[in-house]
Amino acid sequence: MIKTAVIGVGNMGSKYASILQDGLVDGMELAALTRVKDQYKELLSRSFEAGVQVFETADKLFDAVEKGELSIDAVVIATPHYTHEEIAVRAFKNGLKVLCDKPSGVYSRQARIMEEAADESGKVFSMVFNQRTLPIYIRLKEIVSSGKYGALKRVNWVVTDWYRPEQYYKSSSWHATWEKDGGGVLLNQCPHNLDLLQWICGNPVRVQGFCHEGRFHDIEVEDDVTAYMEWDNGATGTFITSTGDAPGINRLEISLEEALIVCEKGVIKIGELEPEMGGKEADYRQTSTDLFPKDNRNLERDTAG
Amino acid sequence: MIKTAVIGVGNMGSKYASILQDGLVDGMELAALTRVKDQYKELLSRSFEAGVQVFETADKLFDAVEKGELSIDAVVIATPHYTHEEIAVRAFKNGLKVLCDKPSGVYSRQARIMEEAADESGKVFSMVFNQRTLPIYIRLKEIVSSGKYGALKRVNWVVTDWYRPEQYYKSSSWHATWEKDGGGVLLNQCPHNLDLLQWICGNPVRVQGFCHEGRFHDIEVEDDVTAYMEWDNGATGTFITSTGDAPGINRLEISLEEALIVCEKGVIKIGELEPEMGGKEADYRQTSTDLFPKDNRNLERDTAG
Repeated sequence: MIKTAVIGVGNMGSKYASILQDGLVDGMELAALTRVKDQYKELLSRSFEAGVQVFETADKLFDAVEKGELSIDAVVIATPHYTHEEIAVRAFKNGLKVLCDKPSGVYSRQARIMEEAADESGKVFSMVFNQRTLPIYIRLKEIVSSGKYGALKRVNWVVTDWYRPEQYYKSSSWHATWEKDGGGVLLNQCPHNLDLLQWICGNPVRVQGFCHEGRFHDIEVEDDVTAYMEWDNGATGTFITSTGDAPGINRLEISLEEALIVCEKGVIKIGELEPEMGGKEADYRQTSTDLFPKDNRNLERDTAG
Repeated sequence: MIKTAVIGVGNMGSKYASILQDGLVDGMELAALTRVKDQYKELLSRSFEAGVQVFETADKLFDAVEKGELSIDAVVIATPHYTHEEIAVRAFKNGLKVLCDKPSGVYSRQARIMEEAADESGKVFSMVFNQRTLPIYIRLKEIVSSGKYGALKRVNWVVTDWYRPEQYYKSSSWHATWEKDGGGVLLNQCPHNLDLLQWICGNPVRVQGFCHEGRFHDIEVEDDVTAYMEWDNGATGTFITSTGDAPGINRLEISLEEALIVCEKGVIKIGELEPEMGGKEADYRQTSTDLFPKDNRNLERDTAG
């Protein structure tokens, strides 16, 4: 069993601790906790009774590890963003595995330092990208990667369903600040979507972004983003997000050489080129003598997510 | 009756002439034609029999007007783009009304010259934006303009259903050239969409475009465009088009302060803010203490187009 400490038991940390407490992760057990917020003490009372050690801070936990008073194999980091780097680096120095909540840090420099520390230790380092486990994205990744429909032509992802009221930003002193949060909707909500985008479609080679800071909220960081992207094969795309749209949209359109894929509301719709197009769009484009062909809208086949 | 000459009877001109021949436009009658392509002679044979005059060129038609040999009140211009300006200006000089197929010209300078000539003559000058007569866009314009749902927040229009094969571009010597066509998908296919966009949502004050020339076809002009736009009230938007996507999409998303409107496949869907949001998103955003409110996706009410 991998004895695991959850560092930072707030909104997300309490979820991770509770999952471990309930034995829902094969091979992992809850061994220690830090910074347990009052409102989560009842949720985790069984662990306290079972003798799971609780520390005031991550520093005190690592002190105990270094003195041989605590034996753990891994840490799950769920503290404010600006502390991720320091905690991860100290964990790696102690030979621990690290699972870190997104984002890796407030600056890209912090992410690099964490990666270097992980490489040096040889221990497993992973970020929490839980949306990669959603069946719909696994299936989408399979479809795009299979090559059945050819290369990427276009990607448009409108993900404006991350609505947040003012109170969300006011609920903690570090949220929505450049210094401690590192950004707004791109750093807080969209790491999942940006990770899925590069996982499914590959990394774009050029990006131009249009960010608006405090457009919908009284915050200094961005809450509205439109990004234009280009891939090295010439594919183009947009990524549009905000925390101020209501109702919002979560719709991912992926245009491949031989099909259009639309992922929305838990359903993948695939529009394949119809037989009259000869199967290959590039061939059809060169040979067709119909000046105004009807657009092909065969989007009937749904693939449940 | 407005006696009308159709100047340039090719693909579009033959449609206009045929509509007039069939008496489908109240108050207008077909009086003359120029440059009738062989393949449209049978279609218009009734007009020839009825004595509608046919001229080899627009110049010869205007010569006849100036000599008093032909009496007309208006011209419909459906010639190649680079000739629109000269024909329109000569029509206005002869006191004729002008209905001109889009685009107005190859350069914006040509459009200005045409407008000046129209102003000087005091005669009606209009472009053919036939999509403004589609019930779905009339309804959309009414909904947005009514103010019922507040100001514009975001517009995304993906209009990639303008698919054209190579033969379309090879079918005439002037198509898809900078000099005589003036551009690609933006000048040829999208004037309708760009006109509807500014008609329904108002003109953006800033635009940044990403155009790819000859991405899908062997042409020198753009066949792939992504544009980012900003309106003076802070609203943002994208406009994405190409003639190389198959299957393509035609989907217009308009986010207003109190509703999301999606226009696709002949249907308008309106997602209104639900009562628990208190009717006004701005009020809800300020007062809600729910940190992670469920996004409001009431998109049930369809408005037939």
